[in-house]
Amino acid sequence: MAGRRPRVVVVGGGFGGLAVARELRGVPVDVLLVDQDNYHLFQPLLYQVATAGLEPADIAYALRGILRRIPNAHFFMAEVVGVDWDASCLLTAAGEKIPFDHLVLAAGATTATFGVPGAAEHAFALKDLRHAVALRSHLLEQFERCAAHPELIDEGLLTVVIVGGGPTGVEMAGALRELFTKVLAKDFPALEVWRARVMLVEMADSVLTAFHRSLQRDAARALKVRRVELRLGTSVSRVTPERVELSDGSHIPARTVLWAAGVRANSLADRLDVPQGRGGRIVVGPDLSVPGRPQIWVVGDLGAAKDVEGQLLPQLAPVAMQGGRHVARSIRRRLEGRPTERFRYVDKGIMATIGRRAAVAQLSFGLCLTGSLAWLAWLFLHLVILIGFRNRLSVLLNWTWNYLTWDRAARLILGPNVRDRSAEPSAPSRSPAADRTTST
Amino acid sequence: MAGRRPRVVVVGGGFGGLAVARELRGVPVDVLLVDQDNYHLFQPLLYQVATAGLEPADIAYALRGILRRIPNAHFFMAEVVGVDWDASCLLTAAGEKIPFDHLVLAAGATTATFGVPGAAEHAFALKDLRHAVALRSHLLEQFERCAAHPELIDEGLLTVVIVGGGPTGVEMAGALRELFTKVLAKDFPALEVWRARVMLVEMADSVLTAFHRSLQRDAARALKVRRVELRLGTSVSRVTPERVELSDGSHIPARTVLWAAGVRANSLADRLDVPQGRGGRIVVGPDLSVPGRPQIWVVGDLGAAKDVEGQLLPQLAPVAMQGGRHVARSIRRRLEGRPTERFRYVDKGIMATIGRRAAVAQLSFGLCLTGSLAWLAWLFLHLVILIGFRNRLSVLLNWTWNYLTWDRAARLILGPNVRDRSAEPSAPSRSPAADRTTST
Repeated sequence: MAGRRPRVVVVGGGFGGLAVARELRGVPVDVLLVDQDNYHLFQPLLYQVATAGLEPADIAYALRGILRRIPNAHFFMAEVVGVDWDASCLLTAAGEKIPFDHLVLAAGATTATFGVPGAAEHAFALKDLRHAVALRSHLLEQFERCAAHPELIDEGLLTVVIVGGGPTGVEMAGALRELFTKVLAKDFPALEVWRARVMLVEMADSVLTAFHRSLQRDAARALKVRRVELRLGTSVSRVTPERVELSDGSHIPARTVLWAAGVRANSLADRLDVPQGRGGRIVVGPDLSVPGRPQIWVVGDLGAAKDVEGQLLPQLAPVAMQGGRHVARSIRRRLEGRPTERFRYVDKGIMATIGRRAAVAQLSFGLCLTGSLAWLAWLFLHLVILIGFRNRLSVLLNWTWNYLTWDRAARLILGPNVRDRSAEPSAPSRSPAADRTTST
Repeated sequence: MAGRRPRVVVVGGGFGGLAVARELRGVPVDVLLVDQDNYHLFQPLLYQVATAGLEPADIAYALRGILRRIPNAHFFMAEVVGVDWDASCLLTAAGEKIPFDHLVLAAGATTATFGVPGAAEHAFALKDLRHAVALRSHLLEQFERCAAHPELIDEGLLTVVIVGGGPTGVEMAGALRELFTKVLAKDFPALEVWRARVMLVEMADSVLTAFHRSLQRDAARALKVRRVELRLGTSVSRVTPERVELSDGSHIPARTVLWAAGVRANSLADRLDVPQGRGGRIVVGPDLSVPGRPQIWVVGDLGAAKDVEGQLLPQLAPVAMQGGRHVARSIRRRLEGRPTERFRYVDKGIMATIGRRAAVAQLSFGLCLTGSLAWLAWLFLHLVILIGFRNRLSVLLNWTWNYLTWDRAARLILGPNVRDRSAEPSAPSRSPAADRTTST
């Protein structure tokens, strides 16, 4: 390498990619982080932006602001479209070639609609800030339209169908019910807001299948108390602009469908000519490098990392963060001529919140929490993981405000303007659930 | 009216329209506020959203949240397209007819480009939240592009031309320079950010022509200290996607042009078949009603209200607020069978801020302030006028944070996605300066 420091290129500024960059601070390498957005997004709180509790800047942090504190790391904003393996170069949509010595792929996952007709076109995804703002605006617009034309309630304008009973679906369902009953019922005193429906459709026979049975039951109970309609053991067979058709033959008039039923590796994985496993995830060896390509590493949702028993690891932020740190240490070991080690994910637990003082938490050492205690643990943990003191302060201020006043300050309709819409009445203002082009 | 309470329909939820609704609280009328957005926008701080210092929810407040506290007022979200005078009905773009007994028009103003070629297509306006977020995203994108291709600086990617030396232009120019030198210079350590230019073009021979001569000089000095390039006595003859052509024959390569040179009454005024004055403003009598139509009132930027000497009143928030209160009282007098009174605007002063500890304020009783004192007065006054305790707290938090850290938390690129852009490389991501369709 003749005096030149090895160059580590990291694709993706999410939990995994950032962990790599941070762990390489002070290591004699040059780190280049590439992302198509200029911010790190705290995805676990995205549903609160969609339900008007938080603003985008509360859960997003400029990547350049983070990397300022890592002298050997730099940022490059670009859409990655592939890799030239012979030249060891990353290829961008704008035609740039970015040479690397080590390449860490941490481009995450997108929504998978499994070919369900209409889902990609008519359902909302909840994977980035644009989705959250579009969903928030769309929801509030339905209420405004019903305020003018209450007969539209019958056509499902106030019905939200959430597909998928995992943490995203459950958290969204609970937050929507609170938004409806505590905020919008006051905003729309003349509207029969009690007729607004939130339906959660889940193929399995319970919500939160990754949790203990008792927590699944607790979560289902908390959802029912909040009048979320659970359709378990049911799948969606079709989505149209006006309704959702279910596997049991019924159909629900609904103008808002959130697809939270599945994820697929970012489509970048499909363009790399490397073996892929379930959900398009890139096959990796025990040290998270790509078999046969020891200088290519995959971190987080994009890769098919396994535990010692050969089970695929879940696509969760902690897996990505620990994987990122592991890869950074592995690169360091390589540079020092030492062998790499197997990645061992330390599962500290999982949690999901249903609403005010209602959450479930399953900690690794066998402890299960529910209710207020789980909820406080959830709040505390998310505040701690959130990047940046200002964001923590702002989220804390908003949460306190929302808790004390039942208010939601961000209930602003900021989608495409009324003017734009009236020019093109047939153009859907919703964003597709599936991103079929490559994103980093 | 046989038992029915008179219905006052107010078009526009800005400073003027809100003042009407608030002043009619408890008066035996039904108030219906109509706006195409679901929020009140605090326009004076819009430039801080455009320069990443504040978030949209900090300066916008849900109109339904405000009207909750006025039992006799309700909200209707619609785009107003005209009035059926014979039926005394407001007409909306969706085809609704809204009957009224009194109609208050407070739809504000839009940007006027005076037919300058290319201005409407290629310059940004700064009149609503979408403009501000689009401008912020566009600006940050130019820096990201230059980080990849520094040679593009020569093509004007880091040059912002602001057209118009009024308060908006001056405040934007100062805020941009602070963003560049204090925030982006640190974000882009490898980029020659000192080469980024902010040029302020003003047709008159000074900035802030509405202020005292001495304050004009102070403001110009403060701008020059911040390296804003002043082009006074100069006008813009053409705007293209790549450059701005000036009346002196020179042209400036610039990819970001902000049009802050003029306003025109909302185009709703053109559709009402009522006499219009300068800038399309609706001619009004001394009590702000439309001559010959005693139950039609015009408040704020939309109307051509005059002072006792026959001078047109300026298009400022305090004029709209006082006018709104006057019209509400006049409607009350009408209902009580009393004659209406002339509207007398009480000018308490004007102020503009250039940057940190730099502002100019001209108070009505002859007092002129500059520097830190004017700046503190400006901060205090804007916090006080801002609606909602949470918004005040959030703005105060953000201002304190920005002041202490020189940080700007909202520097997020949230315009159309890289994916969308790469699909249509020639589509401009900027919003047109002139809204040529009706908006309320």
